Amino acid sequence: MIRGGRFCPFCPGNELKTPPEVLAYRNGYGPNQPGWTVRVIPNKFPALRVEGNLDRQGEGMYDKMVGVGAHEVIIETPDHQATLGDLSEKQIESVFWAMRDRALDLKRDERLRYILFFKNHGEPAGSSLEHSHSQLIALPVIPKRVQEELDGAKRYFEFKERCVYCDMERQDLESGTRVVLETDRVIAMCPYAPRFPFETWVLPRRHASHFETADAQLLESLSWVMRTLTRKMDKVLEKPPYNWVLHSAPVHDPVLQHYHWHLEFIPKLVKVAGFEWGSGFYLNPTPPEEAAKFLREAGV
Amino acid sequence: MIRGGRFCPFCPGNELKTPPEVLAYRNGYGPNQPGWTVRVIPNKFPALRVEGNLDRQGEGMYDKMVGVGAHEVIIETPDHQATLGDLSEKQIESVFWAMRDRALDLKRDERLRYILFFKNHGEPAGSSLEHSHSQLIALPVIPKRVQEELDGAKRYFEFKERCVYCDMERQDLESGTRVVLETDRVIAMCPYAPRFPFETWVLPRRHASHFETADAQLLESLSWVMRTLTRKMDKVLEKPPYNWVLHSAPVHDPVLQHYHWHLEFIPKLVKVAGFEWGSGFYLNPTPPEEAAKFLREAGV
Repeated sequence: MIRGGRFCPFCPGNELKTPPEVLAYRNGYGPNQPGWTVRVIPNKFPALRVEGNLDRQGEGMYDKMVGVGAHEVIIETPDHQATLGDLSEKQIESVFWAMRDRALDLKRDERLRYILFFKNHGEPAGSSLEHSHSQLIALPVIPKRVQEELDGAKRYFEFKERCVYCDMERQDLESGTRVVLETDRVIAMCPYAPRFPFETWVLPRRHASHFETADAQLLESLSWVMRTLTRKMDKVLEKPPYNWVLHSAPVHDPVLQHYHWHLEFIPKLVKVAGFEWGSGFYLNPTPPEEAAKFLREAGV
Repeated sequence: MIRGGRFCPFCPGNELKTPPEVLAYRNGYGPNQPGWTVRVIPNKFPALRVEGNLDRQGEGMYDKMVGVGAHEVIIETPDHQATLGDLSEKQIESVFWAMRDRALDLKRDERLRYILFFKNHGEPAGSSLEHSHSQLIALPVIPKRVQEELDGAKRYFEFKERCVYCDMERQDLESGTRVVLETDRVIAMCPYAPRFPFETWVLPRRHASHFETADAQLLESLSWVMRTLTRKMDKVLEKPPYNWVLHSAPVHDPVLQHYHWHLEFIPKLVKVAGFEWGSGFYLNPTPPEEAAKFLREAGV
């Protein structure tokens, strides 16, 4: 299919123009044929590849290793035009099921220590293809930012014997000022000291360290919250470009009492400049209470 | 002065439209008058303010403190049109002298634990005003990224009893492949595993933890290297937007054997997206050896 004059490799009918699929939900037809609702394929230009071994070695004082891993694209809908907010709850649920299935499959590879799911939406947020998709990168190391969260959450747990994310939810549900949305299973809230304007976190209400343990009720609730949140963002911020990223415990870790999986949604509204690169601190002009109020009140 | 139809508060003649200067190098006239070569003023819309005390307090499980600090603008030239690469070596030297003077002055305030100098050049790199300038933010805490460098460098020193930056310089000068420029006092090199394409670090060759201890010879050499590096970037990358940031030891720390001040120059060529925000890792398609070769060979 050619849309807007441009060939789209993610559209139905073009299945043979992509690497062979690793997962698809479809009725009828065989693999790499049309008829799918969600389709997962290896990235044609992967950051990491599954082949080979890590081959850690020194180069004088430096260390290097081969980039073993996986880089896959989750095509979220056959409809070229639809954005995440346009999709039905059922369709979004299928996307999260696909993510869960891929996590469980990739987890079997002992070399892969972390699976990071993320979405880039819109060109300013780093997306090069219009057709709605998210991605996963499976890594042979724990990402730096996740390790920092794991370490911080562990220190908090050692001190308090409580999960810091559960505590955040409890305190913020009580005050209500930073809550955007809630169901009995999932909460969306602007964190107390967000890096970015309108940064919003989506968390399961019952403690859980690993996303891939989510059951049908939780994925259903998550899908409703993500759909509603995206529509609220689209309304309040006029269809902003955005990124989201899913932080879960490392796949080979046992159930962790101190860590709590969550999704971080960041609309791309401001430029990151010298101060942020140099300090690792972020200047954020929008208080989270204000962002949460706007989002809470936006009817969708 | 109105340039290109727009009023510029940094141009000579408009001194009274900015907050009163905290430092200027000038011949004749009095403060806040024309005739300056470099002028330092408080930022009109500061991220932090000098007034008040830190007032650390809890809000349930969260902690907060008042944003005590300073945010200043270093106007690098009276010439509205000139970019850093257009300035004479003498003029750039004056800019670094102004930075050094401001560091020594702000250091007297015991509440301020860190002074971060940085430059945003071009709109995609976060600059809102065209007239060439850099900035400083003085903070009541050590920036996260600097603390990580301090900790990492300390661990290396404990292991090796050598400064990791001195070791990098030694190894890279020997191989030469990542070196962009060198004088007998300063080196510019692409680090071994850079986050960004064409990321380049500028370091003094003799070990020094604090930028503000630099002497006249070192500042002269630094200015020549920064001018040449900027011109090479302009040539190879066609006048890219860029950020640079100066990392120095915390002002109240004694001389540190394990830390080495340096300037990180980052042309803004790629978009930071979900993977980078989520992982703290950076996908960089350009090997530093290739970037260094391009820059080394660019005649300016």
